[in-house]
Amino acid sequence: MSFLSRVAPALLISPLLAGPSLAEAVVVNGAISEAEVLAAQDAWCDALVSISTTYDADGQDAAKALAGDIIDAAYGYQMGAVLFKPTLTTAPQTFRTTREGALAYFVGDDPNFPGDTGFALKGWTACEAVNAAVFIEGSSATTMGNVSITNKDGSVTTVDKTWTFVKDDAGALRIMVHHSSLPFEG
Amino acid sequence: MSFLSRVAPALLISPLLAGPSLAEAVVVNGAISEAEVLAAQDAWCDALVSISTTYDADGQDAAKALAGDIIDAAYGYQMGAVLFKPTLTTAPQTFRTTREGALAYFVGDDPNFPGDTGFALKGWTACEAVNAAVFIEGSSATTMGNVSITNKDGSVTTVDKTWTFVKDDAGALRIMVHHSSLPFEG
Amino acid sequence: MSFLSRVAPALLISPLLAGPSLAEAVVVNGAISEAEVLAAQDAWCDALVSISTTYDADGQDAAKALAGDIIDAAYGYQMGAVLFKPTLTTAPQTFRTTREGALAYFVGDDPNFPGDTGFALKGWTACEAVNAAVFIEGSSATTMGNVSITNKDGSVTTVDKTWTFVKDDAGALRIMVHHSSLPFEG
Amino acid sequence: MSFLSRVAPALLISPLLAGPSLAEAVVVNGAISEAEVLAAQDAWCDALVSISTTYDADGQDAAKALAGDIIDAAYGYQMGAVLFKPTLTTAPQTFRTTREGALAYFVGDDPNFPGDTGFALKGWTACEAVNAAVFIEGSSATTMGNVSITNKDGSVTTVDKTWTFVKDDAGALRIMVHHSSLPFEG
Repeated sequence: MSFLSRVAPALLISPLLAGPSLAEAVVVNGAISEAEVLAAQDAWCDALVSISTTYDADGQDAAKALAGDIIDAAYGYQMGAVLFKPTLTTAPQTFRTTREGALAYFVGDDPNFPGDTGFALKGWTACEAVNAAVFIEGSSATTMGNVSITNKDGSVTTVDKTWTFVKDDAGALRIMVHHSSLPFEG
Repeated sequence: MSFLSRVAPALLISPLLAGPSLAEAVVVNGAISEAEVLAAQDAWCDALVSISTTYDADGQDAAKALAGDIIDAAYGYQMGAVLFKPTLTTAPQTFRTTREGALAYFVGDDPNFPGDTGFALKGWTACEAVNAAVFIEGSSATTMGNVSITNKDGSVTTVDKTWTFVKDDAGALRIMVHHSSLPFEG
Repeated sequence: MSFLSRVAPALLISPLLAGPSLAEAVVVNGAISEAEVLAAQDAWCDALVSISTTYDADGQDAAKALAGDIIDAAYGYQMGAVLFKPTLTTAPQTFRTTREGALAYFVGDDPNFPGDTGFALKGWTACEAVNAAVFIEGSSATTMGNVSITNKDGSVTTVDKTWTFVKDDAGALRIMVHHSSLPFEG
Repeated sequence: MSFLSRVAPALLISPLLAGPSLAEAVVVNGAISEAEVLAAQDAWCDALVSISTTYDADGQDAAKALAGDIIDAAYGYQMGAVLFKPTLTTAPQTFRTTREGALAYFVGDDPNFPGDTGFALKGWTACEAVNAAVFIEGSSATTMGNVSITNKDGSVTTVDKTWTFVKDDAGALRIMVHHSSLPFEG
């Protein structure tokens, strides 16, 4: 971006040439920062554990209500659809492009999704994301890497996961793409 | 983005829940930072002064060659067109959507633009941008405010200016929109 | 995008290779089309005339209420600020980054903006935009060109105008950048 | 975007109010269309089959050269990294963020990736994408759905696949995200 240094490298810039500042400017910044991406991943992990914890403490209805709130706050179904391929779904209900399909995946209890037993109810106690790569396009950011989740008995499941977060008009990151898969067994 | 704090504010996050990091991740970041915006404005100002200085020291041809290099490095004519309304152009050649039109505006000497006398050749010695507002959309950023340029005799001209910078594939900011106008005299 | 034609131009694509379709797909499209840009310009022109018409028919209060509704629907002040340089403002109130400043410019009647007499109240009967260039970046689009507005007596005023429209979460275009200026008198 | 119809639904728009057009405007359009997305998927499918066909007809070196050309033309490794999780990779080489890793996956023959036997060399004769959902953000577009590939013996393998395409400065779509996985076996 320092085009001047490329086109006129020998030019002596006078210190009298004051540069611009943002001291007096109003700044509206719709770009996503790396810190916001990490915080959104953190929040997803915390949310998964919180649904499990709520289920154990307060039962199915409480877990379902919490999962609904989390989906409404963290995913972008309001924008028309989410590209969501959960880890454990099968055809013909593999892709959960609707809020109803996402909720059924996380907490089950939906006759329209008879195969769902509630992924978030399985006693998860910890969750950690380790990114292989992050691509920030501007107002959207995609991460790819592993997410490891720990069960009550201490066993750890690691999945391959891709998330795309988009900043909404209110400045919140929302998941618009979520592809999760078990590692290939060679 | 802290949706969890909104939906489950009382949740105690265990310190055992390690958060994600970017330590091992490859990061490709196409968003524009505020610092990049300011540096691009700085570079534009420096470039204007450098063309004036080159003209005085080395003549018209040297100034024209430098201006061409600057346009190629700092504007986005490679992408098909730039939305450029210079301060002092008049109809029917008000808008300079081509490289040729931009070059003529800055250094004149083009029979296709007979009204152009070379805005960048007028002995500018200093240039400063003061932003009223900045809007960063992601991979593009727009600034609006004043730019003040100082002549050899110390007189200062202030214009109202809007720039949109877009980050290209190589990571450089390029001007895609440039609207400059003299202040309205009420 | 036709990379295959570049890397394997002689390849015969079998008609048995069925291509993808969107017949079964849910599509969320946040990009701005050229038609949407033109419609948004049209709507701005219509809104200007409607404020004038309302002022003549129903008075200042009605015009002010309508202008407020129009600003709320057509500009992006909800996102934090708009980069708005109206045609006829002067320092130190040149830039109207707040809703209050925009409303005062259009309909006056605000002691905080004593220089404003209400640009939209001047009896405009027609308005037309003629674009010199349009740059669609994706979810934002910028136009540059002339806007000609006709008064009751048939006189036409032409200004140089730049608009950037951004598609909001609800799919509506909002003006985030608006720089208008009288043509330079050489 | 029709804000006027919302704020002044009863307003009669005079046919004398000519609307804007793009007849005289230069248009630079960086948004991705649905047709471009489908064409890019088609091209990926065709490329896979072409590598198989080339391998059978001309051998390993020819297939490797073609695969390299395809990766250079269709993926975005030039931008720093691609978020690529191929169908059949395993830890610790699951994610192929480099060109070298992508090439090894497609055609093998790389001692740095000893587990790779060349996915594109397996005699593929047909390839078809069926989208479940498409999200066009502007200058990027993401698809999620199934891709079915047919072998010489007529057997079909179907995978779950997410692609994000980004339009580069030259107007070509490049894959920046590619997550492919075998369906979960419940």
